[in-house]
Amino acid sequence: MGIPRKSRRERLRAHTTSQIKATALDHLAGGGSGALSLRAIAREMGMTAGAIYSYFDTREALITALIADLHTALADLLEAACRGAAQEGPAAAVFALGHAYRDWGISHPRHFHLIHGHPAGEGQPVPEAAHRAPALLTGLVAACLRLRGAPEPAAGTHPYGWDDFEPGFVARVRAAHPEASPAALAGALRLWARMQGLVSLEVYGHLGAQTRQPSKLFHAEMRQSLLALGAC
Amino acid sequence: MGIPRKSRRERLRAHTTSQIKATALDHLAGGGSGALSLRAIAREMGMTAGAIYSYFDTREALITALIADLHTALADLLEAACRGAAQEGPAAAVFALGHAYRDWGISHPRHFHLIHGHPAGEGQPVPEAAHRAPALLTGLVAACLRLRGAPEPAAGTHPYGWDDFEPGFVARVRAAHPEASPAALAGALRLWARMQGLVSLEVYGHLGAQTRQPSKLFHAEMRQSLLALGAC
Repeated sequence: MGIPRKSRRERLRAHTTSQIKATALDHLAGGGSGALSLRAIAREMGMTAGAIYSYFDTREALITALIADLHTALADLLEAACRGAAQEGPAAAVFALGHAYRDWGISHPRHFHLIHGHPAGEGQPVPEAAHRAPALLTGLVAACLRLRGAPEPAAGTHPYGWDDFEPGFVARVRAAHPEASPAALAGALRLWARMQGLVSLEVYGHLGAQTRQPSKLFHAEMRQSLLALGAC
Repeated sequence: MGIPRKSRRERLRAHTTSQIKATALDHLAGGGSGALSLRAIAREMGMTAGAIYSYFDTREALITALIADLHTALADLLEAACRGAAQEGPAAAVFALGHAYRDWGISHPRHFHLIHGHPAGEGQPVPEAAHRAPALLTGLVAACLRLRGAPEPAAGTHPYGWDDFEPGFVARVRAAHPEASPAALAGALRLWARMQGLVSLEVYGHLGAQTRQPSKLFHAEMRQSLLALGAC
């Protein structure tokens, strides 16, 4: 029997939904989330305001959907970057992930802003796809820690336990990377934050007022972080 | 003779300007920069819309003034935190600065958002006060590097030169900290970005979906960063 085919109505609805999102992303690229208006999107698409509200109740619902989509696209991109470098080992994969993340942020500043710093995210659940990149990094950090030869500190002697982390995130990480330790998870979150810090300073124009070589700084940061893991 | 006293008109104007800014910060705290309206501020203060425009031409001019003020207040706070710990050495001062920054970000998320991630900042010059914290950190990193006993790599062998950085920022750093090297400056920017990364992930609610112990992660990050500098 297989998966039942979508009806014509369902396919049309899915098509219109993605057109609304694509138009919204265009508007965002032009003027930030403040510029996002369901009415303006409807006008551009030749829909009535009433019709667009049957797709997204509110502007915030549309933004929430865009944020989830962007996290998914970003995680796909970062996973592909890692796969491309995986043969050279986990440290090379972390490098590839880091540089892919920076390139994406610089070339999509509005998208970066929407998923990283949009105040609408406050108090709202983080979309599931937002956990993919940190989970992926956890697997790579665990592999780097294994490669350095020295065993990880025995349970109880290192300062992190699973209960330092959110259970849902821990479950996802352990399902994908059974070998990862709480220390690897902590290391991955810190590495993720290091990327986040440099990329956000650069994307928002702060770093450019201080250094002419943000890519050199980013590369050094990635390299020293991996050296600290004993992996390069 | 001394400084000529301000006229009554000038004092009134300065007083009204700071009232407008304080009201704007209240509005921001309630709803983000999208909620900032000169007309709404005027209404609340019992001014006419025309009168408020004689203080700030545009909403963006008011936001720019707020951003500069917030950078000044933040730099004052971070400098005070460092002074309070300076007797215990530069590593303790860096710790104090980092924790003061995190505390400030968590307790003032809208202010953090305005100075760190407000898209209006794109393409606009970074206010002078924004350089104070990274310059202060550069002095502390230089002191940590001196303390670790090993000399810094000789000029030409380390990967950074002054021309890797923006001349205006370099001039400010070298005037305040003549002993600082380009490597210290690079180290300070990376340390600043590490704080920024963890604090922004926490302030925007991303980190909370992954760890229950953001303060433990932040403390470990500061500690390992200082260990890498050989200073604790």
